Amino acid sequence: MPDTRTETDSLGAIEVPADALYGAQTARAIANFPISGLKASPFLIRALAMIKHAAAEANESLGLITKEQGSAIQQAAQEIVHGRHHDHFVVDVFQAGAGVSLHMNTNEVIANRAGQILGEPPGTYKKLHPNDHVNYGQSTNDVFPTAMRLATLLALEDLYPVLNDLAASLDAKAREFKDILKAGRTHMQDAVPITLGQEFRAYTVAIQKCHQHIARTAESLRELGLGGSAVGTGLNTHPDYRQRAIDNLSRISGFELAPAEDLRYAMQSNAAMADVSAALRTLALELIRISNDLRLLSSGPNTGFNEIHLPSLQPGSSIMPGKVNPVLAELTAMVAFQVIGNDTATAYAVQAGQLELNVMMPTMAHNTLQSITILTNTLRQLDHHSIRGITANQERCAHYAARTIALATALNPYIGYAKAAALVKESVASGQSIVALAREKKLLTEEQIAEILDPKNMTEPRARKS
Amino acid sequence: MPDTRTETDSLGAIEVPADALYGAQTARAIANFPISGLKASPFLIRALAMIKHAAAEANESLGLITKEQGSAIQQAAQEIVHGRHHDHFVVDVFQAGAGVSLHMNTNEVIANRAGQILGEPPGTYKKLHPNDHVNYGQSTNDVFPTAMRLATLLALEDLYPVLNDLAASLDAKAREFKDILKAGRTHMQDAVPITLGQEFRAYTVAIQKCHQHIARTAESLRELGLGGSAVGTGLNTHPDYRQRAIDNLSRISGFELAPAEDLRYAMQSNAAMADVSAALRTLALELIRISNDLRLLSSGPNTGFNEIHLPSLQPGSSIMPGKVNPVLAELTAMVAFQVIGNDTATAYAVQAGQLELNVMMPTMAHNTLQSITILTNTLRQLDHHSIRGITANQERCAHYAARTIALATALNPYIGYAKAAALVKESVASGQSIVALAREKKLLTEEQIAEILDPKNMTEPRARKS
Amino acid sequence: MPDTRTETDSLGAIEVPADALYGAQTARAIANFPISGLKASPFLIRALAMIKHAAAEANESLGLITKEQGSAIQQAAQEIVHGRHHDHFVVDVFQAGAGVSLHMNTNEVIANRAGQILGEPPGTYKKLHPNDHVNYGQSTNDVFPTAMRLATLLALEDLYPVLNDLAASLDAKAREFKDILKAGRTHMQDAVPITLGQEFRAYTVAIQKCHQHIARTAESLRELGLGGSAVGTGLNTHPDYRQRAIDNLSRISGFELAPAEDLRYAMQSNAAMADVSAALRTLALELIRISNDLRLLSSGPNTGFNEIHLPSLQPGSSIMPGKVNPVLAELTAMVAFQVIGNDTATAYAVQAGQLELNVMMPTMAHNTLQSITILTNTLRQLDHHSIRGITANQERCAHYAARTIALATALNPYIGYAKAAALVKESVASGQSIVALAREKKLLTEEQIAEILDPKNMTEPRARKS
Amino acid sequence: MPDTRTETDSLGAIEVPADALYGAQTARAIANFPISGLKASPFLIRALAMIKHAAAEANESLGLITKEQGSAIQQAAQEIVHGRHHDHFVVDVFQAGAGVSLHMNTNEVIANRAGQILGEPPGTYKKLHPNDHVNYGQSTNDVFPTAMRLATLLALEDLYPVLNDLAASLDAKAREFKDILKAGRTHMQDAVPITLGQEFRAYTVAIQKCHQHIARTAESLRELGLGGSAVGTGLNTHPDYRQRAIDNLSRISGFELAPAEDLRYAMQSNAAMADVSAALRTLALELIRISNDLRLLSSGPNTGFNEIHLPSLQPGSSIMPGKVNPVLAELTAMVAFQVIGNDTATAYAVQAGQLELNVMMPTMAHNTLQSITILTNTLRQLDHHSIRGITANQERCAHYAARTIALATALNPYIGYAKAAALVKESVASGQSIVALAREKKLLTEEQIAEILDPKNMTEPRARKS
Repeated sequence: MPDTRTETDSLGAIEVPADALYGAQTARAIANFPISGLKASPFLIRALAMIKHAAAEANESLGLITKEQGSAIQQAAQEIVHGRHHDHFVVDVFQAGAGVSLHMNTNEVIANRAGQILGEPPGTYKKLHPNDHVNYGQSTNDVFPTAMRLATLLALEDLYPVLNDLAASLDAKAREFKDILKAGRTHMQDAVPITLGQEFRAYTVAIQKCHQHIARTAESLRELGLGGSAVGTGLNTHPDYRQRAIDNLSRISGFELAPAEDLRYAMQSNAAMADVSAALRTLALELIRISNDLRLLSSGPNTGFNEIHLPSLQPGSSIMPGKVNPVLAELTAMVAFQVIGNDTATAYAVQAGQLELNVMMPTMAHNTLQSITILTNTLRQLDHHSIRGITANQERCAHYAARTIALATALNPYIGYAKAAALVKESVASGQSIVALAREKKLLTEEQIAEILDPKNMTEPRARKS
Repeated sequence: MPDTRTETDSLGAIEVPADALYGAQTARAIANFPISGLKASPFLIRALAMIKHAAAEANESLGLITKEQGSAIQQAAQEIVHGRHHDHFVVDVFQAGAGVSLHMNTNEVIANRAGQILGEPPGTYKKLHPNDHVNYGQSTNDVFPTAMRLATLLALEDLYPVLNDLAASLDAKAREFKDILKAGRTHMQDAVPITLGQEFRAYTVAIQKCHQHIARTAESLRELGLGGSAVGTGLNTHPDYRQRAIDNLSRISGFELAPAEDLRYAMQSNAAMADVSAALRTLALELIRISNDLRLLSSGPNTGFNEIHLPSLQPGSSIMPGKVNPVLAELTAMVAFQVIGNDTATAYAVQAGQLELNVMMPTMAHNTLQSITILTNTLRQLDHHSIRGITANQERCAHYAARTIALATALNPYIGYAKAAALVKESVASGQSIVALAREKKLLTEEQIAEILDPKNMTEPRARKS
Repeated sequence: MPDTRTETDSLGAIEVPADALYGAQTARAIANFPISGLKASPFLIRALAMIKHAAAEANESLGLITKEQGSAIQQAAQEIVHGRHHDHFVVDVFQAGAGVSLHMNTNEVIANRAGQILGEPPGTYKKLHPNDHVNYGQSTNDVFPTAMRLATLLALEDLYPVLNDLAASLDAKAREFKDILKAGRTHMQDAVPITLGQEFRAYTVAIQKCHQHIARTAESLRELGLGGSAVGTGLNTHPDYRQRAIDNLSRISGFELAPAEDLRYAMQSNAAMADVSAALRTLALELIRISNDLRLLSSGPNTGFNEIHLPSLQPGSSIMPGKVNPVLAELTAMVAFQVIGNDTATAYAVQAGQLELNVMMPTMAHNTLQSITILTNTLRQLDHHSIRGITANQERCAHYAARTIALATALNPYIGYAKAAALVKESVASGQSIVALAREKKLLTEEQIAEILDPKNMTEPRARKS
Repeated sequence: MPDTRTETDSLGAIEVPADALYGAQTARAIANFPISGLKASPFLIRALAMIKHAAAEANESLGLITKEQGSAIQQAAQEIVHGRHHDHFVVDVFQAGAGVSLHMNTNEVIANRAGQILGEPPGTYKKLHPNDHVNYGQSTNDVFPTAMRLATLLALEDLYPVLNDLAASLDAKAREFKDILKAGRTHMQDAVPITLGQEFRAYTVAIQKCHQHIARTAESLRELGLGGSAVGTGLNTHPDYRQRAIDNLSRISGFELAPAEDLRYAMQSNAAMADVSAALRTLALELIRISNDLRLLSSGPNTGFNEIHLPSLQPGSSIMPGKVNPVLAELTAMVAFQVIGNDTATAYAVQAGQLELNVMMPTMAHNTLQSITILTNTLRQLDHHSIRGITANQERCAHYAARTIALATALNPYIGYAKAAALVKESVASGQSIVALAREKKLLTEEQIAEILDPKNMTEPRARKS
């Protein structure tokens, strides 16, 4: 028994592994693109299969393929949606422009699997042809942009609960730390008091806002060019096909989807991908900032701020015994850098469209889906294994709250900015605290000192005491 | 009479030009930051003045500054809003962290101008002090982020009508060219027919979508941290100040504004700036794509596509006589590159926040405001002097429509993909047209040929003829 | 028999698969970093093993580990260099800061494999301990930067011959096409004549210059911080260790390597990685440009420039029969976008160093090594399957050469720029060629026309005819 | 007397200010490009004038323009090189593709100024025509790339001494602080001891290495395409022109310059600009890192590391009296962000070349020259007003040196990593110092403690005590 079968496409004959569900064009792609070893995201494979299901159902209902063909295609597609046959999707993420190779990989796997269901062995294509039936009325030009958008929506569904959990964990810490007074720091210099809880509440809001912005931006991914076929004109599609296919796809995917306002636009432009990529980038920017803060606040134990303690997860050094590093905060920053880099690649791809099509879509799909996946996995770890276990060093925080030179700010309404500045200068030079100096210089009564210079009273607006 | 006056701040005495409305801290900033010669955008200066107006009104109403002080500050601020005294805003765009220098420049100009109104010469600060009165209950930390957001909203108000006009001009061309048949091109290769009008309609939608996304994203700029004072805790503000100040600012600016949900967040995070910058970037990405298309379509006259003609604006070459270049399309691409570069600088700034404050705001403000300004000015030129004057070369377009090898696509439903591919191969090899070959090989009746292979019938979905 | 064994590190006990060559800290890393599924590049694994070999040899020679320990470590390391045991390197590329996890993975695999050689089963660590012997006098802080640099040098050795071959193929085409006259195009508009060979020669030079710049820039990777141990001070190293270790590493790797001028610098700074990443970026920028040119020149067959033909590699469309796309040129652009994105991630990582160490090195290593690998694989395909098979459409090129309006440029020295411009205007309006008009208007004699307006004579400098 | 004169170019008549040295094409550019208000860098204007000087001299010597014309052009050009007439260079930095407008602005100013020298008023162009004489044998396509490269070399000559001075100042601090022991920090956690001087020495090397890399990379800017005229073929140039023009330019500019190996390449490719831009980016990345370190080390005074003190330059807050911020370190970071953003814009421009020319050069010139200028001005300030005035807090540094838990690292060779780790754990839990615990547990003799656990002995390699 031979290990390969011979298939033929418009360029001639080519050998295909005997048990492969893919066919000639995929085999060419394997030969043409031995680039990275990276394969398509499962989200993208599932999205492509959902589209094939939806299209087959529409074409069957319009009498353009037979009931038998339609059923077999739909069954094969469902199997793929449920995670089967993914090992037959073998095209490298770096491949032909527009993703033609991955799209034909999909058409071939479904044609061969559906053919099996109808009783013909892979490579036969009598009852079911990848182009003429699985791809009826479709083009890479409308299928790939649709699949990329749908795959992104699917992937984001995994990210959202992780963001929710992370925000909830930060907020729990905000409540836990709400009475822990500490010094604020601006420009890395002593600033007026704040509570540790206020800081964690701000991180909570940061995550929530990013989540909202991503979700709002992703709305535009629901407008789909499916039905545009080759250049967005819908050539070879039935006038009713487009709406039916989109309706089917909504039902199959569980997302409310809609035909794009303009099918030529939907094919030319991937602005929606740039927007979503940028929204992920903003999340990355915020994560860098927050993880840097966590690393600052937990610096030490003896030579840093040492205001909080992150859970110990692994020995921190191959040479320095007992060292423990903020590994998940560091991981978060590195993943964020990758997301920003992926966004750069996506942006370059988005601007490179020419005339009726942007052939750089595989770059957008790979980078955006990878970004979502690594963010999801990273933030789950950060939340479960770092944020939830943070403890505060209340004593150290209180020390800073009492010592920050910016306590003098509260004196502005009483003695003016200029005199308060002179007091600070003296404090820094002499080492005497602001409170001690205010007392010594009788700038305020004891009662005023207790009221005005108490750091606790500085953490919210207050009417001026006359 | 001396050319300078001596002023004193907490670091000591410093000379200030005698007629300057700014004071000691601005003079220090001039000495400290002789970097680029670029000064703050007028939008930012106006926004700062509006905030000072709003704050003074609130503090006056709460009895924290006198009526006399309040009125003078408000009058001085209004003058700046109306474009006066801008030459006294002399701080370089590359300056102190957080924009402290530009903020103090503002406090000083208003204090001195308001002082003049109250009868004291610049530099006196008896009746009106920059820190104690103009800046009462305020900090760079809440004022600068607020000003940057408001300035961005103000600048965008200039961009929006330009985007509207550009979209309208593209749409007018879409209607004008709606019956001009041409060949589509995907992967830069012959594709199925499309109309020139369909292409321009897609450009119209692209501009409209970008416009919508920018406007939707800019909504979050309306949430303001004003009232947070030094670290977002509102120290030295009256409990009623924050809401009053924001209400005043809404009235003064004409925008519906709101206090931020969390004032610590509003000070730490500039995610909203990253989002708006990214939305401008997406516009830039689309403009590169569209301007490249215009350059492709107008390439020639004798060695290119030559499907459209752009108005001639200037001789195109210092050596090649009679050459005319697509200068505004080229300008558009270059401005788009700058917007993308500015977005990179902004993103770096946004991630660099530390603890209670992000001191890198001047970078965000400069880059975002410059991007909006150059986009506004460029797209106005592109619209008025290029898009509106585009004419089509109908004959050339018709030639391509008849000759594209992708006409064979329409044969798929009748003879299948594989046979159609063989026909194309023969056409390319022999030079015979698809129609001629279909006729010669009697693949279709004459009636079918007229119906199925007419490019006009390929530009929208059609039910298959049995 | 159990599937796992229990190991203990400073954080306590943890289960390790019974047959794993790695140990406790790697097991923690598996649990901590389930992020992307991507594993370390083989170049990085080999580089780490070479370093362990070199260090063991140095420490053995200095009497700091025993001969038995030294030999076993060296043998284990050599096995890894030769490609064995790579499946025991299981840490995700997104991992602990500084690459501590991958480094400990290396120490553990070598300790266990060397232990096997000495007769103790994995997990014993009696005769050989990962930290005390394999890692003697070493720290992640000096080992990882050294490994990253060495891995980059190793990877580049695969890229260089591909660049050489690509340049040679382009140059062969330059010679093949040296007499094919065509029109130049600047600003996408008709320009003066050039030969197709001149264009391909310029592409040749572009690749050669990039190659030279990469190689020259990579020189600085040869300066290594090995021997700096924890913070670049060399704590726990013998005074002679550093030089011996580097000498050994030179011999083992085959590269001329040198100790860094300053070991603290070598640990803090990864400027050298940013420089190499940027040199790869420039190659990417050039590849985008050249691959875009190839796509422009091969556009058609009937609606484009059609000056050259690229080999057909796979059917170009799932719907348009017979369409063939420039897939490898498209691939090249997409890979270039990825390289640019990877460079962005690397740059973010490089700026994020703090004090004695930059912990973001895993980001730099992953992105730079991936970029080199995908460039190597892509350019091999581009060269072998596209460039070498390019054919020219001489007839079409000649047509353009004769018709470009910029032929009039040659008239400047005879009739001046202004009159030549008028002539071009008339030519465009009337459709008459420049030659015909020059003849009609008797601007030149027939002899002059033959001499001056022959496109062939315009492709190099010539003395003016009087 | 009219305020304007009428000039005519190939597109017709246009009004020009009566006293302008520029002409019709510049007037069109003013109308076409009212974009940013930013004008060309003086370095670029000077470089253009040097080229015109060099070309005129060559053409005169070859008899292609008269001696009178040649002398007048050279005199006019020299005046511009010496800083005169720059106010007549009025084209916006955002302008026509390839910089045609700025190039024609140059040709016109020189033609008119040289015309004045020859006795004809501006706008006459009888004795001297911008295209026929000033631009003889030249094209924007060879002049602009040459000017951009030369301008970059000129600008870098201002940066280099500033880098030298900065490195010298850092090195002076390295020597001043060579005996100040402190704790190293890696991952922001306690690490083994280091001296403050070692840290500053590493910064010194960082600046020196960046300087070297910039200078080495800029070497390729010396290869110039001048002489290629329109598409790099040298049409309308004398065979001897190219070498003579470059030789003249070398003499005039003072740089050793050379004709490009391939003139087509020199016109198509701006890889050399991308390389230099990237080298500036690496400097920016290092400056971010170092300025962040300075901000960390000077954080405080009471709530931060407080190891060093930066000179006070201006009050740091509008609300917090006595606060002083690290303004020049902050400025440095912001300028670095801008340089990175400018590099992004440049990279986009470099990849956007098409066929014979890259028309996006004005973007590269503007961004690269701005980057060099703002780096030069910023680093001069940083050096003079911050670095040179840094003082160390020796007491605080010594405290950290004695308390870092990583002192235990020195015990590895004596008690092994695992036992040392247990000791650290106990130290962190109990608050007892490593030294105290080592003594208590009798792990070492007193003599050993004095030798091995003295931080001073940890800052360089040492042979192990047996």
